[in-house]
Amino acid sequence: MTRAPPEGGPVERRLYGDLPLVDAADAAAGIAADATVLTSGFGSVGYPKAVPLALAEDDRDLELTVVHSGNVGEEIDVDLVESGAIARRFSYQFSSSARAASNRREIAFSDRDASSLGDEVQYGGLVDPDVAVVEAVAVGEGWFVPSTSLGQVPAFVDAADELVVELNRTQPLELQALHDVYRPGKPPDREPIPLTDPGERIGTNHVSFDPGKLVGVVETDIADSTYTFRDPTDDDLAIATNLGSFLAAEMERSPVFDDAIHLQFGVGSLGNALMGELKELDFGGRDVVYFGELIQDGLLDMLDAGRLECASATSMALTEAGQERLFADVERYAEEVVLRPADVANHPGLIDQFGVVGVNSAIEFDIYGNVNSTHVGGTRMINGVGGSADFNRNSLVTVCALPSSLKGGDVSRVVPMTFHVDHTEHDVDVFVTEQGVADVRGLSPVERAELIIENCAHPSFADDLWAYLDDVREQDSHVPHDVERAAAWQ
Amino acid sequence: MTRAPPEGGPVERRLYGDLPLVDAADAAAGIAADATVLTSGFGSVGYPKAVPLALAEDDRDLELTVVHSGNVGEEIDVDLVESGAIARRFSYQFSSSARAASNRREIAFSDRDASSLGDEVQYGGLVDPDVAVVEAVAVGEGWFVPSTSLGQVPAFVDAADELVVELNRTQPLELQALHDVYRPGKPPDREPIPLTDPGERIGTNHVSFDPGKLVGVVETDIADSTYTFRDPTDDDLAIATNLGSFLAAEMERSPVFDDAIHLQFGVGSLGNALMGELKELDFGGRDVVYFGELIQDGLLDMLDAGRLECASATSMALTEAGQERLFADVERYAEEVVLRPADVANHPGLIDQFGVVGVNSAIEFDIYGNVNSTHVGGTRMINGVGGSADFNRNSLVTVCALPSSLKGGDVSRVVPMTFHVDHTEHDVDVFVTEQGVADVRGLSPVERAELIIENCAHPSFADDLWAYLDDVREQDSHVPHDVERAAAWQ
Repeated sequence: MTRAPPEGGPVERRLYGDLPLVDAADAAAGIAADATVLTSGFGSVGYPKAVPLALAEDDRDLELTVVHSGNVGEEIDVDLVESGAIARRFSYQFSSSARAASNRREIAFSDRDASSLGDEVQYGGLVDPDVAVVEAVAVGEGWFVPSTSLGQVPAFVDAADELVVELNRTQPLELQALHDVYRPGKPPDREPIPLTDPGERIGTNHVSFDPGKLVGVVETDIADSTYTFRDPTDDDLAIATNLGSFLAAEMERSPVFDDAIHLQFGVGSLGNALMGELKELDFGGRDVVYFGELIQDGLLDMLDAGRLECASATSMALTEAGQERLFADVERYAEEVVLRPADVANHPGLIDQFGVVGVNSAIEFDIYGNVNSTHVGGTRMINGVGGSADFNRNSLVTVCALPSSLKGGDVSRVVPMTFHVDHTEHDVDVFVTEQGVADVRGLSPVERAELIIENCAHPSFADDLWAYLDDVREQDSHVPHDVERAAAWQ
Repeated sequence: MTRAPPEGGPVERRLYGDLPLVDAADAAAGIAADATVLTSGFGSVGYPKAVPLALAEDDRDLELTVVHSGNVGEEIDVDLVESGAIARRFSYQFSSSARAASNRREIAFSDRDASSLGDEVQYGGLVDPDVAVVEAVAVGEGWFVPSTSLGQVPAFVDAADELVVELNRTQPLELQALHDVYRPGKPPDREPIPLTDPGERIGTNHVSFDPGKLVGVVETDIADSTYTFRDPTDDDLAIATNLGSFLAAEMERSPVFDDAIHLQFGVGSLGNALMGELKELDFGGRDVVYFGELIQDGLLDMLDAGRLECASATSMALTEAGQERLFADVERYAEEVVLRPADVANHPGLIDQFGVVGVNSAIEFDIYGNVNSTHVGGTRMINGVGGSADFNRNSLVTVCALPSSLKGGDVSRVVPMTFHVDHTEHDVDVFVTEQGVADVRGLSPVERAELIIENCAHPSFADDLWAYLDDVREQDSHVPHDVERAAAWQ
């Protein structure tokens, strides 16, 4: 790994060189009312706070386009959203205010895959970027050290005309030890990413930028608005047990898992619970490696228990307690943890290379194996697709795990038809609920439906799903359906 | 490139060494009645013919699982299908018999992405492979030279317990000059694919195998059942013109296209027509490079006109006339054409690396940008997803091109909702019909709908689509829909 300039050694101070310090209000005032603003932030951490708050309080009639590659915290997702300053936004949201604004279409929200957003912004014509606003723990002339996440920051900094750095003094300087910043070159002369092991470092601990872009450094001490997770429910634990049984059999099945297993888990309370329960699983002496998007508290448990060989991700998406654990001992964790830009952490080619077993949740899946992870009822946006498609599409073994029902059994999450599809029937191999495991690899659509209903549906809904399937299978069709009847399930 | 054994020079004979020659009936008789048979073949060429015909005439009650990574010709897709010998099949079909058998579910058909099928077979638990049957132009002890396509042959040969080689004497020996056989290693120790230019060669001109697997060499002289394309229609030519205008603007827009543009086109009459019309386009001195799945006749025109720098694909999916052109001059074409295994030709990481502009057709797309390329009415399977998802998901710029209506304007191919989704709203950037271009990058779903109806819908249906959108947009939802009303369009 290349250390940060200027000395080539560890970064020992927050500020190097003679940089323009500005306050947040002035930095905000320098952003045009209709600017396209690219921000750091992923997994609700490492996003800029002071400038978004200042923009939220700006008197002008703002119509900003705001782009971030993953979830950002309240200062953007609540304050800036509620101020009405955002006209257009990509590509993940988390708060009820943000959801409501997208569903009322007051904000033109569009949802893109985490791995490709950097290229789409820099080369793909998604937006015309003006300014990048990023959080750092240290900054010098032409470089900064990011804080708790990386996301698409290197691409954003390259793509934007101007740069504002928020220097956050509550984020430990030791976070420098986590980062491995490698931004693939410009296509078509882009080289293959030279990563051969998830624990390897191929880049620098800092992001470089053209010093002429820097319009100001804003100092701040606002902490991340970290995740909160509910305690694991009985369903979560039953899903973990079912997933564990599947993984145990899978490790015996394929030579890919002879010496090691590479895992990824999606974000959320269930994902966190599954990561935590992994430490109970017998891996038969295999190395357990995490190659994913987010590191959640459950993985710290694995690390502390010495059960994890290494972990690669783009964000330390921890709870407040998890962040305290990390901050108290960053350099020890950094021996086994590497943070990468999202275009590396979620890179389709690397997910393929490591033979990842990807485990992601969703809103619902249908009997044929289509998965809806973004739009309730097919129409109302919840959060966003995030990196789930990166892993669902490119993992060697793709698992969709969720409780079979919602609201104490009132709503089935196994439905005849999903009316919004984020992951197609071509992508997901295995479905896991608290009821059991449906390994649909090699099955035709109707065979999948039989196994999914049999093994995964909640008992309250299984009879109705069987009735649906038995009626539609009278049709001469590969994927038989009765759309009106399926719609009644939503 | 490494030449074939034994001499390390060009292969000069069909047969090297003392190999067991068997007739097709005996080879077929050696295949268990419930075997899983992996075959070569992609783009309707390079598939085995004699053994499938012998299996079709076999007296036993066969219940074969047949796996091929792309389209195969009539001997499998018609004769073997109609004989009733196939119980289960992956992952592309083309004949009306095959479609009917899948839709009646007499064959348990499942449809997988072309890029990942090799890994799914060898490592992913899709099937339990018994025997690989492959077509070759030459064979020796532990190696063979494939014929007109590669597909997932290297993975299949590695994965199967036994191997039957069909030595096809109608396929020219000179085809050896086209192949660049590189099979990525086993995950998780798989290395990045070391390809930095689509014209580069990183492998061998032959496929290696464990000599102990070879149960027999079957000699044959049956020609490929090649593609037939209709002449370009007025709609095809109008689509080509609209696509040309889009590409011309796009090349000016992004620095990725400063020196070269890397293109991919989907299979079919439209794709072939689009490839052919490319030669009319002013590329402003840029190198035009093809990084795709299939080479069709239209690309031979580009090559003959000296307009194409190089072409990388997994199959020469030509018409009979195109094959005659190729066969008359293989070595000249091989200076600019490289055939690769499908896991390289369609590799997500390589598509990303080269900043490909991918152009694929479909059955229909909806106003929000979801694309159905496999199931008419959401239920009846047509061909298969092929490699379209590989390119739609991973191209820098993804284009869906099709005529706006079917059957002389009776059926709209722009619909309110697709009831089968192969490519999600997160994937496709630009829609092109004979009516115009809808570049939906950066737009929210409802904005996409407005642009798609305005620019792409057929005039006979535009008013009804506007009426649909205007009614559903009264909802407070991100992707407003009325499922029952949308279903009436199918």
